[in-house]
Amino acid sequence: MDMKKMLVNDRVKPYLLKARYGIEKEGQRVDLSGNLAKTDHPKSISIRDEHPYIQRDFSETQMELITPVTETLEELFNYLAAIHDVAYRSMGDNEMLWPLSMPPQLPEKEEDIVIAKFKSVENVLYRQSLSNSYGRRKQMISGVHFNFEFSDELIQSLFNLQSEIKDYQHFKTEIYLKVTRNYLRYRWLVTYFYGASPSSEKNFFEEGSLNEPVRSIRSSKYGYTNSDDVRVSYSSIRNYISDLSLMVKRGLLIEEKEFYSAIRLRGGHQVSDLEEHGVSYVELRNIDLNPFETYGISYEQAEFLHLFLIYLLWKDEDNHCDEWVEMGDFYNDAVALEHPLEPTQFAVEAHHMVDEMEQLVKTLDLTISDSLFVNLREMLRDPSKTLAGRLCKESEESSQAHVATCIAKENYKKSWEKPYQLTGFTDMELSTQILMFDAIQQGIRVEILDRQDQFLKLQLKDHIEYVKNGNMTSKDTYVSTLIMENKTVTKKILQQHGFRVPIGEEFHTIEQALRSYDLFSAKPFVVKPKTTNYGLGISIFKEGANYEDYQKAIILAFKEDSSVLIEEFLNGTEYRFFVLDDKVYAVLLRIPANVKGDGKHTIEELVTQKNRDSLRGRDHRTPLESIQLGELENLMLKGQGYRMDSIPKAGEIIYLRENSNISTGGDSIDVTDEIPDDYKKIAVDAVAALGAKISGIDLIIANKEAPAANKDAYGIIEANFNPSMYMHIYPYKGKSRRLTMHIIHYLFPELLQN
Amino acid sequence: MDMKKMLVNDRVKPYLLKARYGIEKEGQRVDLSGNLAKTDHPKSISIRDEHPYIQRDFSETQMELITPVTETLEELFNYLAAIHDVAYRSMGDNEMLWPLSMPPQLPEKEEDIVIAKFKSVENVLYRQSLSNSYGRRKQMISGVHFNFEFSDELIQSLFNLQSEIKDYQHFKTEIYLKVTRNYLRYRWLVTYFYGASPSSEKNFFEEGSLNEPVRSIRSSKYGYTNSDDVRVSYSSIRNYISDLSLMVKRGLLIEEKEFYSAIRLRGGHQVSDLEEHGVSYVELRNIDLNPFETYGISYEQAEFLHLFLIYLLWKDEDNHCDEWVEMGDFYNDAVALEHPLEPTQFAVEAHHMVDEMEQLVKTLDLTISDSLFVNLREMLRDPSKTLAGRLCKESEESSQAHVATCIAKENYKKSWEKPYQLTGFTDMELSTQILMFDAIQQGIRVEILDRQDQFLKLQLKDHIEYVKNGNMTSKDTYVSTLIMENKTVTKKILQQHGFRVPIGEEFHTIEQALRSYDLFSAKPFVVKPKTTNYGLGISIFKEGANYEDYQKAIILAFKEDSSVLIEEFLNGTEYRFFVLDDKVYAVLLRIPANVKGDGKHTIEELVTQKNRDSLRGRDHRTPLESIQLGELENLMLKGQGYRMDSIPKAGEIIYLRENSNISTGGDSIDVTDEIPDDYKKIAVDAVAALGAKISGIDLIIANKEAPAANKDAYGIIEANFNPSMYMHIYPYKGKSRRLTMHIIHYLFPELLQN
Repeated sequence: MDMKKMLVNDRVKPYLLKARYGIEKEGQRVDLSGNLAKTDHPKSISIRDEHPYIQRDFSETQMELITPVTETLEELFNYLAAIHDVAYRSMGDNEMLWPLSMPPQLPEKEEDIVIAKFKSVENVLYRQSLSNSYGRRKQMISGVHFNFEFSDELIQSLFNLQSEIKDYQHFKTEIYLKVTRNYLRYRWLVTYFYGASPSSEKNFFEEGSLNEPVRSIRSSKYGYTNSDDVRVSYSSIRNYISDLSLMVKRGLLIEEKEFYSAIRLRGGHQVSDLEEHGVSYVELRNIDLNPFETYGISYEQAEFLHLFLIYLLWKDEDNHCDEWVEMGDFYNDAVALEHPLEPTQFAVEAHHMVDEMEQLVKTLDLTISDSLFVNLREMLRDPSKTLAGRLCKESEESSQAHVATCIAKENYKKSWEKPYQLTGFTDMELSTQILMFDAIQQGIRVEILDRQDQFLKLQLKDHIEYVKNGNMTSKDTYVSTLIMENKTVTKKILQQHGFRVPIGEEFHTIEQALRSYDLFSAKPFVVKPKTTNYGLGISIFKEGANYEDYQKAIILAFKEDSSVLIEEFLNGTEYRFFVLDDKVYAVLLRIPANVKGDGKHTIEELVTQKNRDSLRGRDHRTPLESIQLGELENLMLKGQGYRMDSIPKAGEIIYLRENSNISTGGDSIDVTDEIPDDYKKIAVDAVAALGAKISGIDLIIANKEAPAANKDAYGIIEANFNPSMYMHIYPYKGKSRRLTMHIIHYLFPELLQN
Repeated sequence: MDMKKMLVNDRVKPYLLKARYGIEKEGQRVDLSGNLAKTDHPKSISIRDEHPYIQRDFSETQMELITPVTETLEELFNYLAAIHDVAYRSMGDNEMLWPLSMPPQLPEKEEDIVIAKFKSVENVLYRQSLSNSYGRRKQMISGVHFNFEFSDELIQSLFNLQSEIKDYQHFKTEIYLKVTRNYLRYRWLVTYFYGASPSSEKNFFEEGSLNEPVRSIRSSKYGYTNSDDVRVSYSSIRNYISDLSLMVKRGLLIEEKEFYSAIRLRGGHQVSDLEEHGVSYVELRNIDLNPFETYGISYEQAEFLHLFLIYLLWKDEDNHCDEWVEMGDFYNDAVALEHPLEPTQFAVEAHHMVDEMEQLVKTLDLTISDSLFVNLREMLRDPSKTLAGRLCKESEESSQAHVATCIAKENYKKSWEKPYQLTGFTDMELSTQILMFDAIQQGIRVEILDRQDQFLKLQLKDHIEYVKNGNMTSKDTYVSTLIMENKTVTKKILQQHGFRVPIGEEFHTIEQALRSYDLFSAKPFVVKPKTTNYGLGISIFKEGANYEDYQKAIILAFKEDSSVLIEEFLNGTEYRFFVLDDKVYAVLLRIPANVKGDGKHTIEELVTQKNRDSLRGRDHRTPLESIQLGELENLMLKGQGYRMDSIPKAGEIIYLRENSNISTGGDSIDVTDEIPDDYKKIAVDAVAALGAKISGIDLIIANKEAPAANKDAYGIIEANFNPSMYMHIYPYKGKSRRLTMHIIHYLFPELLQN
């Protein structure tokens, strides 16, 4: 079996960069001064023992963030970023994550390191026995585990090219065994480039620390390793399993999972499953936290690891595989303990391997970041460019702890800067981002079925729910949304159920509409296109209209739609009620774009000031939109006798728009607690009459202090089947209403049953 | 109160033509020779005693068709036409409706006239007592009842102009009382124009018939009248009620509803309700069946009646109202018994009234058919133009019965001509028309909430269901339809549930797609836009593709959509499975537009022949589309070495299209009974995996004789949330599957519980 030849085959090449990835990233919680946190795992993370994304590792302070399995690195880093956001904001604003593999200063007494408070007795006992075997201090080291699986198409196409091994599963296992042996042999290269645990903080070593900084304490014999007696053969899967079980039998390991190899063969739940099911992926465990990356590992690093694994599959190995692996251990320990600012003793070999890898990229037509080989060579040329080198150098001026605290603070700031965003998914709709945040926090698995289409699959144990646009769910019937989509049908049904709606008619031709002039002309009325939603083509006549104006309005509306509604105009204030499962969760007042004068600044300056709010931005990626100063705004100012450079009096409110849409710079004001229950009941009953479960329903209320039962007290304008949620969650003024969380609890009521 | 002045007020005028209407139309069922039917009320009309649209009147053969209340005359006639279609096609193809008020030849023995076989004993007893009082023969006379209600806005605006009557309900009742008295006074005009029962058939009169034809036997003393002792005052609502109850007490009437006035005051369930609730509308009962109108009354007649009622409201009345009404009876009886071909003795008065009405139309700015007054004057000038006159004249050559039978046959033919259409609603989608047909037949109330939008409200007792486009209902969840709308999401979910779907990827840029050439090029694959449905932009490569063709296909697809799918191409035959509530109700094979050679005709001639099928037409208003001979068809012919004037061999099939869409002239072939259950189970399970209840799911089956469990036996292409139903109901070949009826039964399972 000539793997080198097989890999360059055209039937193999398309699949070389297809793979599945996963990351587990540990890190200590610290306070804002960089001291180990004394608090428990955040309460807002409700599922504690079996959370799919946010776990504890050994200690209560050691957070483990776990991505789902992804099929691209982009997706992998998106999830990693998002889970970090959730972790940060779940901790609250007085904690952050320590960016180094080596823990911050530990308590003097080892017992003061608090073992993770799992509910499961088994989990706690296991950690206690680890504590007995290795001491609690060593268990406080953190790192990144990189899970990697070659695509099935790749292994299948390789399998098809040979006839030596008849069984596909066996073939696959052999592939991973070769990669594993070679990884163990050559992992020192990873330690050189990305080792990043040069020094320890106070109280880490019981008896003093290392005298000099090294590349990686964690990957060295001082790190997280089994005793020297633990030796396992990778010559075959059978040998591997039997050696491991022997170690457990002999009491050298408590459990098989205590075997701390730099790379672990994975497949099935237990090691013994590997025999029956074969190896399905590998877990690289020797990656130190990259202090200079917010999420502990860079995209380029991950690309390197993928490429490295292809290279190791391609690269010949020695037939004496146990010695081969042992030689790797020797190399790695040597490199790990080198001074980070000194060149490695294996520089020639390292250069040769980088050259080989680059050649392989060319031969196999692989698409890799342009910068990768430049950076690798730079790190070989100048050790201070390696991660350990950089950390070591930066720490010279102050201390490693100081540098780490500063980095942690930067990361902390970043995660709180735009609390409405979910990093990694900021191209998605804001409500979807917030819903994903809440789902991740609640321990619900989030899979994106279609990113452009905002289509999510949410899963909690066996319970699956599909959600589009944040609130289009299985709870609403199809026809109820079609009813809400059609203003005429909505009105008819509401009217038949006894609700007040503006009286009006639908027209399909200009002539037909003109003929009905007499029906509307004498009272306040509004002309609007049937289906547009952006305020276009709407004319309001608060005191009736003459025939000419009526005609103009109709022509205008027909430009927007082939159906036009003419309706009585209702006087009062419009409120948006967010109804979910027969309950009003939020009521919002929307006010047209405006500024408040201070007697000093021009309108233009006041707008600039108001737009500085980090909640304001463009294109619905922030909870509020920046106020524009375009044609419409200038017209509106002119109508009031102002210009952009006018200076309004102190306290005076200047409106820049007629319409109150948030999308044109309007203000959102939460008034949920101010709206009397009788109006809320009308909103709930009206939504029920439409057969809907999730709806944003717009009521015009003449005077909210007056009873809803009064004649003409209210009128229902329309109901929306995909109502904006973010404007209630991040209002301009008033209380935030976390509607996304209510949606989550509505879809997964079992979350509230614990 | 000066009604003449009030009616011309500008605040009143807009509402004068707003009203609510309803029609009840009786008619005898006859066989195709015009003999009274001997059959029972049709079995297909499942609800028998309380059907809202199709009832029996006195006898088992006397069908009563009832429209719902409508707000326009257009709508009224649409329903009347539709209900006729349903009645005709429910009777089966050996019966029709007698078009005259006077019944066809009756059995010699009166007892052979079968009283309607109601389940309710009360109903039967009432008819028996009528039979005792009047004899069964008279009860066999049929007619039209025209229900009319002024719009509330009209009455309200009139009410606001006066101060004499303080109570609105009282005012409204007075309005209707005036109209009623004047109607009774002047109804002879209706009898003159529209009376249409000149002669009777054999066995109608026990002792001989009338010697000469008259205008209306039905409206004369020989018609359907109470005994002379029955006299009721219309001076006030109280007097009216007390007189009626006196008549019942005296035994002159069995029940109040036995009072056969030419106009009846309506409101509430019983006459006594009128006192409490007032009059809410009137029922005109003296309208003979118009033999020359398929539905027994013309639109112009209805317009006349509306205008006549406005005129009667406007027209002064005499203070001695009982005498006034009595004078009306005298006039009417006189006109009814005039010879239909002679001028009326009250011609001067009639001309005067027509002039007054025409003047009123002008004064009040009413929009009325241009022809109305022309026709009225023509009928006054020439009595042979009245309905009675025409019928009388036409009967001279043969007999009234012969004329009636011929007319009935014409109507019968018309209703069977396009059995897939529902007259009155042919502008709507075919599936919606068929669903409405079935709903009407099943006794479900059908209200059109939005005609352009195919939005229906269906109601059976208190049970309401909304349906759009025939099968978008409350049974499907919103998100399941969104899943089906998105091909990528559909595929992902099906794949996760273990179904075979074509493997592929979604691309958002041309460059991205080009980079994946290697992934697809070697096997059969298809390039298609993500969301278009009409076959545009799709390229199929059954044997892989070179880079150039691959690139062309991608550019083509991106012209149609910003997302493009590249998928493996599955070999086999595509079938459409219609799944409803976890059951397959139909499987369809669609074959591209084609003709079969006969060795004689050219392809063009064969196409013309095939297009003659009445199932073929244009724009989805027929179950099949006409085959076109456009650019694409010519290209396709050229590719096979043919031209339009080629003469194919006998038996040779010539395809004119590559795609099998019915919309481009394809043939639909029902294969429901040929598809093995294991494939049906896959369709059902796949639809269930998508969480859907109504879906048209497309499977490619390699060989339907082979088990579905075989490797690559099938692949699922897509699922449709609004699958066409009519193509299964009226297939080109094979059994019809009445899917609309299954939808009705799914929405209203209570229909099956009786």
